[in-house]
Amino acid sequence: MGLGAPVADAGSVQIQGLGLIGGSIGLSLRAAGWWVTGWDIDELRARQALRLGAVNEIGQNRHADVTFVATPAAAISRLAQEALAEGNGVVSDVGSVKGPICAAVEHPRFVGGHPMAGSEQVGIAGARADMFGGAVWVLTPGETTLDETYAAVRATVAEMGAEAVTMPPDLHDTLVSVVSHVPHLTAATLMRLADERTAERTVLQRLAAGGFRDMTRVAAGSSDIWLDICDANRLAICASLDRLIEALGDVREVVRRGDRDALQLHLEQARVARVNLPSGIPSDVELAVLRVPVRDRPGEVARIATLATDIDVNIYDLEIAHSTEGDRGVLIMVVAAELAERLRSALAADGYHPSVRHLGI
Amino acid sequence: MGLGAPVADAGSVQIQGLGLIGGSIGLSLRAAGWWVTGWDIDELRARQALRLGAVNEIGQNRHADVTFVATPAAAISRLAQEALAEGNGVVSDVGSVKGPICAAVEHPRFVGGHPMAGSEQVGIAGARADMFGGAVWVLTPGETTLDETYAAVRATVAEMGAEAVTMPPDLHDTLVSVVSHVPHLTAATLMRLADERTAERTVLQRLAAGGFRDMTRVAAGSSDIWLDICDANRLAICASLDRLIEALGDVREVVRRGDRDALQLHLEQARVARVNLPSGIPSDVELAVLRVPVRDRPGEVARIATLATDIDVNIYDLEIAHSTEGDRGVLIMVVAAELAERLRSALAADGYHPSVRHLGI
Repeated sequence: MGLGAPVADAGSVQIQGLGLIGGSIGLSLRAAGWWVTGWDIDELRARQALRLGAVNEIGQNRHADVTFVATPAAAISRLAQEALAEGNGVVSDVGSVKGPICAAVEHPRFVGGHPMAGSEQVGIAGARADMFGGAVWVLTPGETTLDETYAAVRATVAEMGAEAVTMPPDLHDTLVSVVSHVPHLTAATLMRLADERTAERTVLQRLAAGGFRDMTRVAAGSSDIWLDICDANRLAICASLDRLIEALGDVREVVRRGDRDALQLHLEQARVARVNLPSGIPSDVELAVLRVPVRDRPGEVARIATLATDIDVNIYDLEIAHSTEGDRGVLIMVVAAELAERLRSALAADGYHPSVRHLGI
Repeated sequence: MGLGAPVADAGSVQIQGLGLIGGSIGLSLRAAGWWVTGWDIDELRARQALRLGAVNEIGQNRHADVTFVATPAAAISRLAQEALAEGNGVVSDVGSVKGPICAAVEHPRFVGGHPMAGSEQVGIAGARADMFGGAVWVLTPGETTLDETYAAVRATVAEMGAEAVTMPPDLHDTLVSVVSHVPHLTAATLMRLADERTAERTVLQRLAAGGFRDMTRVAAGSSDIWLDICDANRLAICASLDRLIEALGDVREVVRRGDRDALQLHLEQARVARVNLPSGIPSDVELAVLRVPVRDRPGEVARIATLATDIDVNIYDLEIAHSTEGDRGVLIMVVAAELAERLRSALAADGYHPSVRHLGI
């Protein structure tokens, strides 16, 4: 596949770093018929990936359609820049913090990514072909990211069964501090609070029932990646920790003064929010197709996908049809029929001229 | 069964309140051949319990060997006092906070209790006969609790497959604030933090992967019982919240100044503590029997069981053999062989004269 062509059913992929995520990308794309080349700084791990069937071969395929950099954070920017300099395919990464990487790598053929799956485990041994099925895979295109780059990575992610959600790198970093980084640090802190009562440690352990086990499970994972994450996402994490500390102080005050109404409101709002956490993509959604004429310029498609994310419209499928004449094309998106009008009017307000056609179930 | 006799294989039990815990006690003891009478302020719920087989009959059996009060916290003390006044069996409860109840009910035939299971659900529909299998059931005898009361409730709890752990009411309340109450309030607070970003609420929900779901699962439960819990355990909860807020502030400072060593230490100690959370009772433990001559006076047996908890010795079985002459008896306990000497010397240091006999596997 070259730039400008749609992703073929069976493309080729280069994976740098064959841990849990890199290995799962390999297993998943091999299952879809792709040719997978993989490399790891640890040769034993690379050979294990080969044995497990996560790669067809060990090495560097500079002609790969797509390169995923799935190493620890410290090596991502350099390896992405090398892949961009030495090959002509598109490049993405799977780092947990996007701002610093996207700023360092900014390139027409690069789009940052972050699959929201598998964070508690590490190592190729935990890799699975279905790791990303139904999972959200965040894409964070930069200012110069070409439409074709974005579309190619998006299509590859879809081949792994993941659902692409597009947003700016900085917003990603703020939001994951809320739903991932600070919860992880909090789990570790709750665990240590129980553990620091050394006189009653064993009793405390035996009192720890299902709820406590659920809440602290993530703290059992390796601490290594969290050092890099906390380093890279320092500002957002500190801001979210401040907010958590402030909110816990409010709860403490409510408990101290025995304000049952305020406590009930707090717990009830949390209950409703938790119950409403979506558990997957609905299978029986009525669909609609939006066609949006666009200029062929960097970031146009990514900008529209980000706009859709902003207004809570999920794009199930996305395609770019290029005009044979001039610098214009048509962006074709499949969305839930009931949300099509919301997206159409938001695009119209932004100066686009979209058309909508409803599909049957 | 009268006081002073061992619990028969098939005893009779009165259950006040047929929700999740009351219903599960009924199902569990009926499976063990007990005669179960149950009552609930909500007649529909009582009839549902009868239909589900959680009780043999609806009503009040004032001759029951054991009465469990399993109503919401506000009604426990009054119903326990009524059962003590109108019957002559032993009485226990399942309230989540023990200090206030044990202070109010203090009676030779009463021992407070708290099964550490099933806290996230409510309602008779969730009741299960195996709810307490392998779970810890805390017993909190008071100053005047008779040995026979303690032993009878302990034996009943064991019939349900639970493991009794004995401690003073106040220590229980402090420890559950650490492993249950504050984690619950924290889960609700984390959930609301994600929810209060209304502009990105839907995106945040979709970013919420397994770890966040695990951490906030308890927040999906009904908020009703938590109002009573926070009321009754206010001091311990506020103290533990203060400690959590302080610890999170420390973590924030570590992240802010990029202190990787301190962060790694924090996460690594949490990881080790979480990995070491025991997951059940070992099945292949070599056992020993301790025989301890005791005076027949209130609380003697409970005091020894509490001592065992203090020094992390789990009592697998416990029996009181009464002397036919005078006011002395023998307490017979089964413990892990490797811990028998620890318990023996602790008892000796307290003025007891225990003997130890090892059993084969």
